[in-house]
Amino acid sequence: MIRADKDLAFMLQYENIAWYENGEVRILDRRIYPRKVEFVRCRTHLEVTQALKDMVTQSAGPYTAAAMGMALAAYECRNESKDKQLEYLKKAAYTISHARPTTVARMTLIVNGCLDAAEKALESGENVSEKIVEHTVNSNNSRYFKVEKMAEHLVDMFPQNGTVMTQCFGETIVGMMLKVAKQREKNLRIFCPETRPYFQGARLTATVCHEMGFDTTVITDNMPAYVMKKENVDVFTSAADAICMDGYVVNKVGTYQIAIAAKYTGIPYFVTGSPDFGHPTIDTVKIENRDPDFVLQAMGVKTAADGLKGYYPAFDITPPELVSGVVTDLGIFTPYDLQSYYKGLDLNKIEMVI
Amino acid sequence: MIRADKDLAFMLQYENIAWYENGEVRILDRRIYPRKVEFVRCRTHLEVTQALKDMVTQSAGPYTAAAMGMALAAYECRNESKDKQLEYLKKAAYTISHARPTTVARMTLIVNGCLDAAEKALESGENVSEKIVEHTVNSNNSRYFKVEKMAEHLVDMFPQNGTVMTQCFGETIVGMMLKVAKQREKNLRIFCPETRPYFQGARLTATVCHEMGFDTTVITDNMPAYVMKKENVDVFTSAADAICMDGYVVNKVGTYQIAIAAKYTGIPYFVTGSPDFGHPTIDTVKIENRDPDFVLQAMGVKTAADGLKGYYPAFDITPPELVSGVVTDLGIFTPYDLQSYYKGLDLNKIEMVI
Repeated sequence: MIRADKDLAFMLQYENIAWYENGEVRILDRRIYPRKVEFVRCRTHLEVTQALKDMVTQSAGPYTAAAMGMALAAYECRNESKDKQLEYLKKAAYTISHARPTTVARMTLIVNGCLDAAEKALESGENVSEKIVEHTVNSNNSRYFKVEKMAEHLVDMFPQNGTVMTQCFGETIVGMMLKVAKQREKNLRIFCPETRPYFQGARLTATVCHEMGFDTTVITDNMPAYVMKKENVDVFTSAADAICMDGYVVNKVGTYQIAIAAKYTGIPYFVTGSPDFGHPTIDTVKIENRDPDFVLQAMGVKTAADGLKGYYPAFDITPPELVSGVVTDLGIFTPYDLQSYYKGLDLNKIEMVI
Repeated sequence: MIRADKDLAFMLQYENIAWYENGEVRILDRRIYPRKVEFVRCRTHLEVTQALKDMVTQSAGPYTAAAMGMALAAYECRNESKDKQLEYLKKAAYTISHARPTTVARMTLIVNGCLDAAEKALESGENVSEKIVEHTVNSNNSRYFKVEKMAEHLVDMFPQNGTVMTQCFGETIVGMMLKVAKQREKNLRIFCPETRPYFQGARLTATVCHEMGFDTTVITDNMPAYVMKKENVDVFTSAADAICMDGYVVNKVGTYQIAIAAKYTGIPYFVTGSPDFGHPTIDTVKIENRDPDFVLQAMGVKTAADGLKGYYPAFDITPPELVSGVVTDLGIFTPYDLQSYYKGLDLNKIEMVI
């Protein structure tokens, strides 16, 4: 992917590789990475939508994939009239942004940004797909810049020699956190809960931490509380799929439980990301239930006997009382006063930082 | 296995099948059950000790396996003088009881019972191995009777229509709990966390609950807190590897975390088992760390990249403040007054109920 900031090259192999080119979007298959490096190839924006539903990519990955899906939609309708193209793109924007119920608010911001770029391209007669890709690259670069600020505030919360616990894979913020920690010569031990049922913690976060040179240990999802106490964890941190304006955090299932354990054992929990003004309260969030059979297997091997039921809520909800601070590009906010984040910002020009 | 109580036949396939016969102990391999039914065959008591170390059987299983190991040790030394046989058996008792550091206290009670039986057999000239087996069958039958009483007190704590969460596989108490709940026509939904890294919850507990006709759902180990809240769980219950006299509970890693979540969400946690007078305080318990690489795989498939470290404490410690009650054969006790359990009991004749 084209990037202004060459320092970020280290992130290339971990960052969501979702890319549009010549009528095709290819998405790194995060379900099997890093044991295998394979790409899912999509020839229509509906296939991109399906890939989002199937969790081919996660964390910030779906947002880039959604934008690339918009570029693909523009390719699909390139021979139509301007009006019809715009109509087609608006329909595609709706479809793509509604791929997963929990992230509709953030996805809508992303696809609306692409629609704006498309409208400008249609007016000026430029290639619409290329314009959407260019917009996305610029938007990602501006996001990386903000995430780096966010990482600086987060790493402020880490001791010079300390122990950090993560949850799932926060992607860009994980990479930036490690980069900043390294610049400041922080000596960190990192514990990564494996994050069932997809093992993103074991497969992705642990790999990034290890390759960046940190002392990294994988644990199973029933160990965080014991490890916090026994191994003197200093900080628990996670990204979020939504940070509601009332301070409720929606993130990969397990976050709630680790946050409870952190509170009980006296460890702060810092969540990273922009407050989500698309969600004034937690009541506007719909928690997605995924294929229940998926929890009855591990790495493709069946764990339970035939006839048993599974249950698979993709996310859980952590209340503000368990959140020590919301770490943003503009500093750290209490979850009870997230309105402050938006003071002085132009709400029409906000880009969510994930 | 020979049993007085035919009603317990349903438990046969789930109960630890560890059996001595003709110079061999065969142990049901619980690491792969129920997907495969295979037995580990041991020709010496050292092989039995190794099987215990390798966690071929778990929960109450190791105690029967240890006793059968003693019967095998008696077979090994059958042609020696009486004095040498007794000496050999004492050495074997030490070896077997120390197979796993966390359970030395309970194992010592088991092997000492076998030593008593052996001494009597040596005096009367009976077959020592057979006498140890007979002693074990009697002792197990008396244990089943006590566990049934325990189950009655536990099921008292369940609503007539309610939801129960388990942890790992408590074997005899799980079977008895279900039997009593069925007799009382309790309509229970049961949620079984899968219990990484061995999946005993998914493989064993869920199977038993399902086959006994209860509405059973498997969840991953990062879901208990969310499920407690979302699905209105009424009770969390587990067995224990040790219930110290000061009310600290040692059980399969994960118990501590679920107990914290239960407390936070306002759900009682009932632990079943005898208070362990071999452990006057938690300070006498050594938590066993097992092969760290085992957490880097699931069902035999590697989850993490090469070079990463794992961490595998087999058990964790739940403090008395998280324990709503210790459910024994004699009733339910507060964890702060476990001395009461032993009032009026002859300490020389105590058999632990696991």
